[in-house]
Amino acid sequence: MPAKDLYHPTVCNALLKDGWTITDDPLILKLGIRSVFVDLGAERVIAAERGSEKIAIEIKSFLSPSPIRDLENAWGQFFIYSRALAKRDPDRTLYLAITQETFSNIFQEPIGQLLLEEPGFRLMIFDPQLEAIVTWKSSI
Amino acid sequence: MPAKDLYHPTVCNALLKDGWTITDDPLILKLGIRSVFVDLGAERVIAAERGSEKIAIEIKSFLSPSPIRDLENAWGQFFIYSRALAKRDPDRTLYLAITQETFSNIFQEPIGQLLLEEPGFRLMIFDPQLEAIVTWKSSI
Repeated sequence: MPAKDLYHPTVCNALLKDGWTITDDPLILKLGIRSVFVDLGAERVIAAERGSEKIAIEIKSFLSPSPIRDLENAWGQFFIYSRALAKRDPDRTLYLAITQETFSNIFQEPIGQLLLEEPGFRLMIFDPQLEAIVTWKSSI
Repeated sequence: MPAKDLYHPTVCNALLKDGWTITDDPLILKLGIRSVFVDLGAERVIAAERGSEKIAIEIKSFLSPSPIRDLENAWGQFFIYSRALAKRDPDRTLYLAITQETFSNIFQEPIGQLLLEEPGFRLMIFDPQLEAIVTWKSSI
């Protein structure tokens, strides 16, 4: 199982404060002989008659010396997990969790914009000090 | 500049044997303040009247202990480079160069099939012993 991201407990707390229940830590998807590990699965009741909303969260701290390498890894993980979810758990929506600072830096540069322009890409932006969700963002 | 892949000279030789001229080693794409390095740029005359065909090649040896991590990295690099090429050098077609063995293993599993099903994904499969191109493959 891959090592947990530095912000794993921070994101768990932010989700709990926002009314989510953590259902999977990690969320495991079986594809043939391989298992794919997404950091978190969570669920929230929307309204009694509408049932619940289900999400999967991959957390990325963007703390390596190369932000381009971080972006490449985030892109690869996000889209493999999203395609795997579409096959194994199609009602669940995937988000990449990043800090406000990461969003204000590499994601505002032309290279980060490539990912924001990509259909199906979704972000959950959090404040690591307040351990709170700032916003949810979707490319489409 | 990132380290060269183990198969860098092998792929250069395979391209030369196939009539390509290596024009960029690496191919550098500027995006804002960042530079993206694709392993190789190459060009080949198609026919006098039709001009030349231009490609970019990213080489992946898939030799890490985790084939899933290799696949995630390959996915991230391929699609960032393909989006960057679409903006900076739109006449050039990107291929991921992998060995026959890699194609016969992880790419035949359900997780590898996810990448083969992805629109716009393209492979150049080579034989590392013969230093020769085996085939070019496109997802669409």
